[in-house]
Amino acid sequence: MLHRGKVYLVGAGPGDPGLITVRGLNLLRQAEVLIYDRLVHPDLVAEAPDDAVRIYVGKESGRHCMPQERINRLLVTSAQQGALVVRLKGGDPFVFGRGGEEAQTLVEAGIPFEVVPGVSSAVAVPAYAGIPLTHRKIASSFAVITGHEEADKEESSLPWGELAAAVDTLVVLMGVKSLPQIVHHLINAGRSLETPVA
Amino acid sequence: MLHRGKVYLVGAGPGDPGLITVRGLNLLRQAEVLIYDRLVHPDLVAEAPDDAVRIYVGKESGRHCMPQERINRLLVTSAQQGALVVRLKGGDPFVFGRGGEEAQTLVEAGIPFEVVPGVSSAVAVPAYAGIPLTHRKIASSFAVITGHEEADKEESSLPWGELAAAVDTLVVLMGVKSLPQIVHHLINAGRSLETPVA
Repeated sequence: MLHRGKVYLVGAGPGDPGLITVRGLNLLRQAEVLIYDRLVHPDLVAEAPDDAVRIYVGKESGRHCMPQERINRLLVTSAQQGALVVRLKGGDPFVFGRGGEEAQTLVEAGIPFEVVPGVSSAVAVPAYAGIPLTHRKIASSFAVITGHEEADKEESSLPWGELAAAVDTLVVLMGVKSLPQIVHHLINAGRSLETPVA
Repeated sequence: MLHRGKVYLVGAGPGDPGLITVRGLNLLRQAEVLIYDRLVHPDLVAEAPDDAVRIYVGKESGRHCMPQERINRLLVTSAQQGALVVRLKGGDPFVFGRGGEEAQTLVEAGIPFEVVPGVSSAVAVPAYAGIPLTHRKIASSFAVITGHEEADKEESSLPWGELAAAVDTLVVLMGVKSLPQIVHHLINAGRSLETPVA
């Protein structure tokens, strides 16, 4: 291969394959190595050239298919072999996508990389449901939090009191399991019982 | 025209024309009426068919080119005339884009519409700067606020105390003019002087 190895951290968007960006799709169609996650639509995986190496590194709830450290190493070694590497991640690579850890690994290894943002499900899911995250007269701010807490973080609980008062719209990702606790926390912290929820 | 009038509220992405979604571009190429904002890249405006009606409704700082009420009416009348209408907005239509108001108008007028989300600058600008909004061990939440307050909102000041403590990463849109006040508020509210800022 003639070009130097480079890694493109590409956001696949929120699910619908039509919601990948034009630039993301163009890169995908030139990929020599495609490293992709569980939430990436099969139609997008099929867009890579027939002779591209496809590596599935998806994580499923409860069990990790490939530890993050191995994914990081795979990105580095694929690029060092001179391949055009596309790392395709659900949503946006930098919104709860561990793109930050992967970018950090690439910086440390001296591998050139580029981030191609994607539509985050934090924005797209409300949009598809017809719910604006902001509205001139109703909501002028929003926050995105995760309901699925990392066990290895020092602080295990979110600042619910502040969250309840800080922003108008609150988007909770991965919060289905802990939904009753979240609602309880927010109401205890002063959110009105009349707050619309979707 | 044969098809019934429908309005597509399409996010153009954060600036780079390659960051529009594939679905957004496909719709743009079929537009009969294109109604677009100031922050939309000229290359995207050029993607509409040659015979499409192009209507610029951009707002510039300080003066409004076309009041929102007139934009709303334009969407309704164009669709009622049976046209395929693409309403192209910078970033995502529902993130500080007044897409909510336009969608509401369409609902009230009984016009079919669809929202095609876009990459919000709130996510893309940090991504291009290499800054993950979340990072497994550093930041597990983010909020997006506007530094440009609406005069007709009842509460004219943001809850800085809560904002400072509620989330890890804070994204301020349209905050250049009020940057010194924002920094002052956040430090007064307890944010460390060592907080990284970009």
